[in-house]
Amino acid sequence: MASTHRAQLLAEFLGTGTLVCTVVGSGIMAETLAVGNTAVALLGNTIPTGAILFVLITMLGPISGAHFNPAVTIAFTIRKELAVPKALQFIVVQILGGIIGCLVANYMFELDVVQISQKIRSGPSQWVSEITATIGLLLTIFVCLRSKPEAIPAAVGLYITAAYWFTSSTSFANPAVAIARIFSNTFAGIRPEDAALFIVMQLIGVGLALVMARFLLEEEAVA
Amino acid sequence: MASTHRAQLLAEFLGTGTLVCTVVGSGIMAETLAVGNTAVALLGNTIPTGAILFVLITMLGPISGAHFNPAVTIAFTIRKELAVPKALQFIVVQILGGIIGCLVANYMFELDVVQISQKIRSGPSQWVSEITATIGLLLTIFVCLRSKPEAIPAAVGLYITAAYWFTSSTSFANPAVAIARIFSNTFAGIRPEDAALFIVMQLIGVGLALVMARFLLEEEAVA
Amino acid sequence: MASTHRAQLLAEFLGTGTLVCTVVGSGIMAETLAVGNTAVALLGNTIPTGAILFVLITMLGPISGAHFNPAVTIAFTIRKELAVPKALQFIVVQILGGIIGCLVANYMFELDVVQISQKIRSGPSQWVSEITATIGLLLTIFVCLRSKPEAIPAAVGLYITAAYWFTSSTSFANPAVAIARIFSNTFAGIRPEDAALFIVMQLIGVGLALVMARFLLEEEAVA
Amino acid sequence: MASTHRAQLLAEFLGTGTLVCTVVGSGIMAETLAVGNTAVALLGNTIPTGAILFVLITMLGPISGAHFNPAVTIAFTIRKELAVPKALQFIVVQILGGIIGCLVANYMFELDVVQISQKIRSGPSQWVSEITATIGLLLTIFVCLRSKPEAIPAAVGLYITAAYWFTSSTSFANPAVAIARIFSNTFAGIRPEDAALFIVMQLIGVGLALVMARFLLEEEAVA
Repeated sequence: MASTHRAQLLAEFLGTGTLVCTVVGSGIMAETLAVGNTAVALLGNTIPTGAILFVLITMLGPISGAHFNPAVTIAFTIRKELAVPKALQFIVVQILGGIIGCLVANYMFELDVVQISQKIRSGPSQWVSEITATIGLLLTIFVCLRSKPEAIPAAVGLYITAAYWFTSSTSFANPAVAIARIFSNTFAGIRPEDAALFIVMQLIGVGLALVMARFLLEEEAVA
Repeated sequence: MASTHRAQLLAEFLGTGTLVCTVVGSGIMAETLAVGNTAVALLGNTIPTGAILFVLITMLGPISGAHFNPAVTIAFTIRKELAVPKALQFIVVQILGGIIGCLVANYMFELDVVQISQKIRSGPSQWVSEITATIGLLLTIFVCLRSKPEAIPAAVGLYITAAYWFTSSTSFANPAVAIARIFSNTFAGIRPEDAALFIVMQLIGVGLALVMARFLLEEEAVA
Repeated sequence: MASTHRAQLLAEFLGTGTLVCTVVGSGIMAETLAVGNTAVALLGNTIPTGAILFVLITMLGPISGAHFNPAVTIAFTIRKELAVPKALQFIVVQILGGIIGCLVANYMFELDVVQISQKIRSGPSQWVSEITATIGLLLTIFVCLRSKPEAIPAAVGLYITAAYWFTSSTSFANPAVAIARIFSNTFAGIRPEDAALFIVMQLIGVGLALVMARFLLEEEAVA
Repeated sequence: MASTHRAQLLAEFLGTGTLVCTVVGSGIMAETLAVGNTAVALLGNTIPTGAILFVLITMLGPISGAHFNPAVTIAFTIRKELAVPKALQFIVVQILGGIIGCLVANYMFELDVVQISQKIRSGPSQWVSEITATIGLLLTIFVCLRSKPEAIPAAVGLYITAAYWFTSSTSFANPAVAIARIFSNTFAGIRPEDAALFIVMQLIGVGLALVMARFLLEEEAVA
């Protein structure tokens, strides 16, 4: 039996919310405790994020597909595997879930619940980072989907674990997460104007990933 | 063939004991070695805890269900999947196991075997943390139980790995563990009066999680 | 088809050697790089050890059973699942492999190839640690063997990951490893006289684990 | 259906490129953030590398076999499981992919895109490290291939996680990676003349591993 539409929207809301709550909350915890050693803080941000992605995709994948990311939802829509109205609803609850997740993290760590980040994340190297990170994330999902769908929770969790470190932007690769992190003036935050450009780069990454996936998944014609 | 009742109680006793021994023991080890860098200490507390949860649930799950947590046992009882008398026995051995596990850790690290924690863990942000952490833990278990029960050992281990960092309480989410950690006046400890309130919040989390699970697991009626 | 006897002995030799080489080599690397922060050094010792255990048990398990540990070999022999002459040969190559692995690590890090440790590891709390660690390791193996043998590589790797931190001895739990680590006067070393007592404690752990496993694995009689 | 030849070359190109981009990029990130604590930097280099290996082998294995490494390609060719012309093409795109991956990492971290490393990695202990590391990598692949091929992504990722720490060379074990890392004058770099000798040692490792694999995989003749 399939999950109801309502259950699917709830799954996308809770999943994106928990993801952002983990990114922001662990960022605050790590920044606070690791005074002066930012590499340790990034480890304390990376490990929980990779871990929660495995958990959320494992548990909510069978309900909604576990997108938690408008870039993923848009890619499925372009591939005609998701109807436009449903995609729009997914994107709305992802963004709302992400923002609520950020506010909950702020509350749990006794910060102002609503705050706007002043953290600068800008420049061509960061933009190329976001394009690269998004291509990698989407290829991971779409290539695994064909031959090893059961490995997607581990693959996505470990992909983001790596991408936090091999890009200078720490790999947002997710418009809902980029928007939500505006509301955290901490280690994990991003200025509104920078988030906007990050999202543009992520959408460029979606387009490039879909083209690359076509080449990678090309198969021999049967004679 | 099913495990005997006695084997089940032993599994809950040993499992909870080993879990607490790991939380407290690795906390002492990490605090002692990481002088001045609490983020490193929390990493040294998180990684062993996530690891041992995978091990304990994998090995003891087929025997007792691997609750190790009165909140989980109560949730199964409310769902009528566990009889009340058996649930009460589980809870008793979980609490006893947890306390013994804490005393063993104290002994192994040459501390006073019996000690009462003075570590303050209080305030609304920590209480909301415990509610949030418990909801997440129970949803992980009950949602995975329906479609991916074989993933539960990894999912619970990684959920707690993340929750140590995204909540300000470091996610006890377990009344037996909260009681046991009273007996450790270290990094991992908690004052008796604070443990009592943590348990109240955990029980609120159980109720909320059961309601949310119902919505998340709602399925289309067959036409 | 079964592996030849010669292949089995080679597997035990190479497996124990690689295990010790990893424990000692990563200990030297970590101690050298983490000047002044022993918790970071222990992380740099723990993660490689847990990782290589997963690899070695996965690859060599189908060949020899992947004991790499006289305590495990003795337990299988007591359970009458391994003949005494073969067990003796396993133990000899495990000890030889462990010593060679230690010498290779010394050479790779430009230390004197043959050296005798002066590192003190003694006292009742460390002895109880070794008993506890060995019980946990053997229960992990023997309980998983019945219902989830395919999970043993991950379970053993993660058990040792946790046990490095929750015992004050950092969980040798292996007589061949204890003997081999005599030949490393570094972070991972142990004095000869202390290794002897560690081995006594490990053998006590074997006995206790076999008794506990019998209770844990007790099943209902069919009516 | 099989992947096209073009898709296979693209998989080897992208896989090796992403691997090198992760090794070099996370090296730069870690070195920059972990000022003064090289053990933390190595953790920040190790965890992403192990993670991305799991991801890349999982997703691209079904397309090209996921070699990403001329040492692996040569070993398959010697075993007559790969034709020489195809092997040569694989090696060319692996080397090209690796170099491009390094340049992309340089760009993302605002360094000179083209740079030549001056980092010295030389001496007998490092050469023995490369021989040892390559033997271990190839045995992991070829022994798992026979009885547990589905475990190869995790086994290779965790093998390299361990080998970063138990060898003094941090285990390149890959001629394409050795060549690519010439183009990074950072934590992860290597001088051209040292890379050449590393490759010689890796090829010696290939030969030794193939001999050892034959002994390890020897089976009883059927009577």
